[in-house]
Amino acid sequence: MKLDNFFKPKNIAVVGASRNANKVGHQALKNSLETHKGKVFAINPNADEILGLKCYKSIKTIKEKIDLVLLALPAKIVLKAVKEINKKGVKDIIIYAAGFKEIGNNKLEEQLKNYLKKHKIRALGVNCMGTYDAYSPLDTIFNPSYKMGRPEKKGGISFVCQSGAAGATILDLMEAKGYGISKFISYGNSTVLTETDFLEYLNKDKNTKVICMYIEGIEQGRKFLETAKSCKKPVIVVKGGTTEAGHKATLSHTGSLAGSAEVYFGAFKQANIITAKSLQEMFDIARILEKDIEITGKRVQVLTNGGGYGIMATDTLIKQGLIMTEMEKNSIKQLKKSFPEIVVVKNPIDLTGESRAEWYQVSLESILKDKNVDAVLIVLLYQTPHIDPKVVDLISSSLKESKKPTVVVSVGGHYTETLKRDLEDQGVVCFDSPERAANALAKALQYKG
Amino acid sequence: MKLDNFFKPKNIAVVGASRNANKVGHQALKNSLETHKGKVFAINPNADEILGLKCYKSIKTIKEKIDLVLLALPAKIVLKAVKEINKKGVKDIIIYAAGFKEIGNNKLEEQLKNYLKKHKIRALGVNCMGTYDAYSPLDTIFNPSYKMGRPEKKGGISFVCQSGAAGATILDLMEAKGYGISKFISYGNSTVLTETDFLEYLNKDKNTKVICMYIEGIEQGRKFLETAKSCKKPVIVVKGGTTEAGHKATLSHTGSLAGSAEVYFGAFKQANIITAKSLQEMFDIARILEKDIEITGKRVQVLTNGGGYGIMATDTLIKQGLIMTEMEKNSIKQLKKSFPEIVVVKNPIDLTGESRAEWYQVSLESILKDKNVDAVLIVLLYQTPHIDPKVVDLISSSLKESKKPTVVVSVGGHYTETLKRDLEDQGVVCFDSPERAANALAKALQYKG
Repeated sequence: MKLDNFFKPKNIAVVGASRNANKVGHQALKNSLETHKGKVFAINPNADEILGLKCYKSIKTIKEKIDLVLLALPAKIVLKAVKEINKKGVKDIIIYAAGFKEIGNNKLEEQLKNYLKKHKIRALGVNCMGTYDAYSPLDTIFNPSYKMGRPEKKGGISFVCQSGAAGATILDLMEAKGYGISKFISYGNSTVLTETDFLEYLNKDKNTKVICMYIEGIEQGRKFLETAKSCKKPVIVVKGGTTEAGHKATLSHTGSLAGSAEVYFGAFKQANIITAKSLQEMFDIARILEKDIEITGKRVQVLTNGGGYGIMATDTLIKQGLIMTEMEKNSIKQLKKSFPEIVVVKNPIDLTGESRAEWYQVSLESILKDKNVDAVLIVLLYQTPHIDPKVVDLISSSLKESKKPTVVVSVGGHYTETLKRDLEDQGVVCFDSPERAANALAKALQYKG
Repeated sequence: MKLDNFFKPKNIAVVGASRNANKVGHQALKNSLETHKGKVFAINPNADEILGLKCYKSIKTIKEKIDLVLLALPAKIVLKAVKEINKKGVKDIIIYAAGFKEIGNNKLEEQLKNYLKKHKIRALGVNCMGTYDAYSPLDTIFNPSYKMGRPEKKGGISFVCQSGAAGATILDLMEAKGYGISKFISYGNSTVLTETDFLEYLNKDKNTKVICMYIEGIEQGRKFLETAKSCKKPVIVVKGGTTEAGHKATLSHTGSLAGSAEVYFGAFKQANIITAKSLQEMFDIARILEKDIEITGKRVQVLTNGGGYGIMATDTLIKQGLIMTEMEKNSIKQLKKSFPEIVVVKNPIDLTGESRAEWYQVSLESILKDKNVDAVLIVLLYQTPHIDPKVVDLISSSLKESKKPTVVVSVGGHYTETLKRDLEDQGVVCFDSPERAANALAKALQYKG
């Protein structure tokens, strides 16, 4: 399905634009106005001007063609408004309002759905939070921007999220961490547009390299699985409501019939979907898979300057089904020659707290060309006496030419966070715990492209 | 065993004090000098002055009684130095040097061990990183303070860590997060002082409420388990080397014979030790248990303003063996009256994105006095339009009189982090993901005091 108008429309109209800063109709107008490159029209019969923008009494009084409507009116008058919007010939609408089937108002939602389907209107929602695209860059989310950051950096991850709040918090987190994004879609009750439509669309989207999804229930199961199976990009799913109690809660959230977890997970696996246990894990995996990597096997070499973390990483790698490799004899021999006695050249290679920045470079030179190594887990603790900031450049330039999946673990406070961010900005995937890194690496290496 | 001299000695001597800022003997001197309230003596036969401190040629030339020696000399000359220190009558020594059994120099370590035991010297190490006490406040760790923060806030968690680097990074992280600590002990190869000695000591330490341990191998297994079993405080352990490959790595880290994971975990359980899967999980659990709480059962009420996170928290709580409670009929009735139709008063209670700060206060009033509720998991998303910063005070004052274990989940960027920190500073335990919070709560509620 063609969903371009949700991300790069020419003209936008906000129906239900509001002067009250706490209202959806104010924030949706403000955020789209601040980000949209085309025209934005405000519609409110009782106001002359909002945010310096002239107000129209109704959508029909606008002469220009409208590509996308942001509909910010309460549930009870949504259908009436949709009819007017349809008359104007607009087929793409974001409907924010809650108060439909998720609170038992099934009839209200059914009537709306029938109308939307009959008139071939591509409505996002109801009970949703909007969209975001770092490339266009359009922001139709109704959370105030001072409370919730949007990741401005262009990236390869797109995120389709049935829960608006969960989506919003993750965007906010991504912005704070400096991660990039492609597209974000909050779709709530999936009244007409469903997860399958988004999957089809993102599979063809050139900016999207990995598709992340938080799903409570699936509308057209078979079609979704077929679409996922034929998808040329990694699809990672977090399923909300995998226990009976969680499942019950989905009914009053997005009105989803969540279904048995086992059935879902089995079907997901057959459709080449990666299942994540949490949103955090989903993005951990996605950050590895969005890179230009080649997955050749499960043999990992660990390189560390902290013995304990090397051990913890090893324990997790093994538990997740990966293999602690033995490097080629020549590599080992060469490395042993390069370092003093205290350095342990096994797997892990323990450079110890005595490590200099250059020791990482020397080690990586051998590791990255070693035929017995498919992936690398680096523990880099910035707190030790001899490690200085040039380690960031040394590691990132060592990794530049390599397609071996590589993750870096650094744990600590402000000094560490600053250098970790520098390394991430150079395209290296960093984590804040050995377990998170090892777990994400293991899941990523299981992907069959 | 009496270990007071490692945390609140009167006079300290640094043997092997160095002018070179990259050396252990410089940083150990600098950090103890900057934090210690008593006298600090520097010993270096080839320097007149270091960091403005007069240097002594040898320890015997100091007239004052010395309570603690920080020994910063290389492995090969440690024994010789220890003999001199013993002649001076000092029985408490921190030995930083690596290069003993962990790299195969078993004989060197054995000789040292025999001497230390024979002369009843309480040596910490070898191959360790030092100690820290937020109350005294003495810092004997040799990592530069600009690279690694120390948590200045006084807290109830003590951390005993066989791996120096792992310990250091966690202290650094705790400082950045604003968490409090009591004592930190890095003990490396446990040449004479072992995990059992620390456990005994911390059990009697009035500032310690929870004991966290990272252990690779246990020296006196039976004694350790008996000590843990009789311990009046929660003991949480992360065991490094639970896989064969991880186990092998412990040999070249702290020279520990790690032993089978299953045997350990079974024995830990019998000794009332809580086993954590990662350092992060250990501190997550510890932060709950250090509070003044009463554990009465496993029935949890979830309160959220984000439906998706309520569901994810529920899924994890159930998977971890907790019970989603049903509140008393009166509580439910009263709450339903207090809120508009869109609020779902079940478990979870979903206040929705429409929630006002006061809705949390109203909900908590009912939840905390409800007889069917043993513990509370709150999801508080600061990004939604109507939530304002006064929610921090409203929640913390609601919780002040309650002993029900309560955790708060907030996910997001800068705005969220600021308010989350405010709430934490008021004594409320906050997490950055529903899974972490639910998991830690479940583990904490399993503790039998």
